[in-house]
Amino acid sequence: MHVDGIPYRTVWLAPDEPGLVRIIDQRKLPFAFEIEDLRTVDAVAVAIRDMHVRGAGCIGATAAYGMVLAAMEASAAADFDSAIHQHAARLVETRPTAVNLRWAVERQLAAMAACDWAGEKIAAAERSARAIADEDADACRRIGEHGLNLIRQLAAAKALGEPVNVLTHCNAGWLAFVDHGSATAPIYAAHLAGVPIHVWVDETRPRNQGARLTAWELGQEGVAHTVIADNTGGHLMQRGLVDLVITGTDRTTYTGDVANKIGTYLKALAARDNGVPFYVALPSSSFDWEIADGLREIPIEERGSEEVSHLSGQAPESDVEVEVRLVPPGTRTANYAFDVTPSRLVTGLITERGICDANGAGIRAMFPERF
Amino acid sequence: MHVDGIPYRTVWLAPDEPGLVRIIDQRKLPFAFEIEDLRTVDAVAVAIRDMHVRGAGCIGATAAYGMVLAAMEASAAADFDSAIHQHAARLVETRPTAVNLRWAVERQLAAMAACDWAGEKIAAAERSARAIADEDADACRRIGEHGLNLIRQLAAAKALGEPVNVLTHCNAGWLAFVDHGSATAPIYAAHLAGVPIHVWVDETRPRNQGARLTAWELGQEGVAHTVIADNTGGHLMQRGLVDLVITGTDRTTYTGDVANKIGTYLKALAARDNGVPFYVALPSSSFDWEIADGLREIPIEERGSEEVSHLSGQAPESDVEVEVRLVPPGTRTANYAFDVTPSRLVTGLITERGICDANGAGIRAMFPERF
Repeated sequence: MHVDGIPYRTVWLAPDEPGLVRIIDQRKLPFAFEIEDLRTVDAVAVAIRDMHVRGAGCIGATAAYGMVLAAMEASAAADFDSAIHQHAARLVETRPTAVNLRWAVERQLAAMAACDWAGEKIAAAERSARAIADEDADACRRIGEHGLNLIRQLAAAKALGEPVNVLTHCNAGWLAFVDHGSATAPIYAAHLAGVPIHVWVDETRPRNQGARLTAWELGQEGVAHTVIADNTGGHLMQRGLVDLVITGTDRTTYTGDVANKIGTYLKALAARDNGVPFYVALPSSSFDWEIADGLREIPIEERGSEEVSHLSGQAPESDVEVEVRLVPPGTRTANYAFDVTPSRLVTGLITERGICDANGAGIRAMFPERF
Repeated sequence: MHVDGIPYRTVWLAPDEPGLVRIIDQRKLPFAFEIEDLRTVDAVAVAIRDMHVRGAGCIGATAAYGMVLAAMEASAAADFDSAIHQHAARLVETRPTAVNLRWAVERQLAAMAACDWAGEKIAAAERSARAIADEDADACRRIGEHGLNLIRQLAAAKALGEPVNVLTHCNAGWLAFVDHGSATAPIYAAHLAGVPIHVWVDETRPRNQGARLTAWELGQEGVAHTVIADNTGGHLMQRGLVDLVITGTDRTTYTGDVANKIGTYLKALAARDNGVPFYVALPSSSFDWEIADGLREIPIEERGSEEVSHLSGQAPESDVEVEVRLVPPGTRTANYAFDVTPSRLVTGLITERGICDANGAGIRAMFPERF
């Protein structure tokens, strides 16, 4: 997608300099747009661990490119195989719960294992990294196409020129993938197709990925949007101001239970209470094919309490970010990062293959080879 | 209730200096505790308008005390009646939607109208102001007694020593009234009675009255509590970590629809979905005896968008509050201040007379003289 009118991906190999991986440093958005150069496996590991990049697809692709640097470093080591496996382990342990990270690293190891010589291995890792990134972008693009049909149907039921109002939570945007995003892909597709659209952006406390990242993305693409406190969505739905909810997911069971950013469940309840369709957009890499009961079996990460007690933003009349305390000193805070929306509240899943019901039968019909 | 171990009300007449009204300046909490001296009607009007005090009961009592100052100022004017009505109008217009404000000012005018001489009028206004404040405190105390029974029942069903977990939204604490609070009164009563209790405090974006005021109140009373992002309550209920929700209300219809801080509706939905009792605590002064359909008939205030785009907190290593920007420059934000929870989602209403069903029949049985 675009930044200041120029097309970008979230991570890429520099075309003119071997061994240079470039990323958008997402920690500084929306107040500064900075490209970070990564020249070593260590630098890639730090970028993933410290969330310079975040989001399933983006982490996977960054790790895949990191394995190209790993191959280059290993080719200078005494024992290539031993070195490459050490690098792989180093990358995988940066975000232990990220499904795409492990998958991408293992795919890179397999691609290299098929080659005999270090030079071939490096070339294979590079080809495979590009494929991983392209596949991620392509899956999101297809999600956009399928979701566009949905938005067109809603637009057809409205007065001419009236925008379709979509509510989204957190950032399942292109910043979380390589390009397009999952929840945002249908929105961008509709905007490009000239379908009038307006997005209610949940700010998404505590880390405010909606207020920071989704608002920035949509603004860069020229999509009309309004940031709201997370408390607001129910009221908007009661007043008929939301036509469609689309969120992303960190993990969805093969039965249709959706783990996503904390607060998603509350929006799903409000959607159900007001007859608003609630869709989850995901590439099939976000399915968990092992787990049947999301509420019982998906562990919910508790993150640092300081993400609730403190918040950082741009200081007045400056470009500097400042972190301020929001609670009385000594106050205990808790920070559950995700919740699980039971499949009964999900109208449907928008995947790269099409839209299916959020239940075992619907998912099986769309991905029969997995069952 | 207590501040640093010393009992306070939110507003009072200085015992040793005629014509001095004192308030806790709530804008500075929780980072500074300051008493403000109000010696003129103008100062009282500014304190109400600029939210040095806020909350239905607290505003009403402050206006009542303000009318004592008004009587003193009017007694020096050429025409007492004309002057006192000007002062009254000045106070009423500071917060046009506050039901208690108009009611308190009118009660003060009536008390003075029954007296012949300026000196008598001043004395009558003072007696009546004390009565208004005492009645507000007493109604909240009774709410606490009735709510305590509810909490005792929940405690009886738990293992010995296990706390009853109460979730609350916004600040319906003693700071919003003269003393005790509405939603907090049962919590304070339980704590005093030795019933183990723990409170989940919604931070309550955008103005963060939970994180700032409720957390401070509970901390000063030694009640165990944890501040959470507003997104969190549904997840906690799914995991069995909430036994009871109690909120306050800005206005409740005689049919049981509850207008309260934005986001209350989402918690009521989650409570219903998880079988958690959802109670609303209110003195009967918060009932609207005219309106039957809360969703259609209660107007929802839209406040300044900067309350969503910016947030203020305590700067690092300082006592100074700083306001930081949370969204990209130029981003549109919307700020709906309240929502309406339909009566079907409310388990019951805790009033000064007892607990009743949140519907016409239940409210009529408790307040037959109003129907």
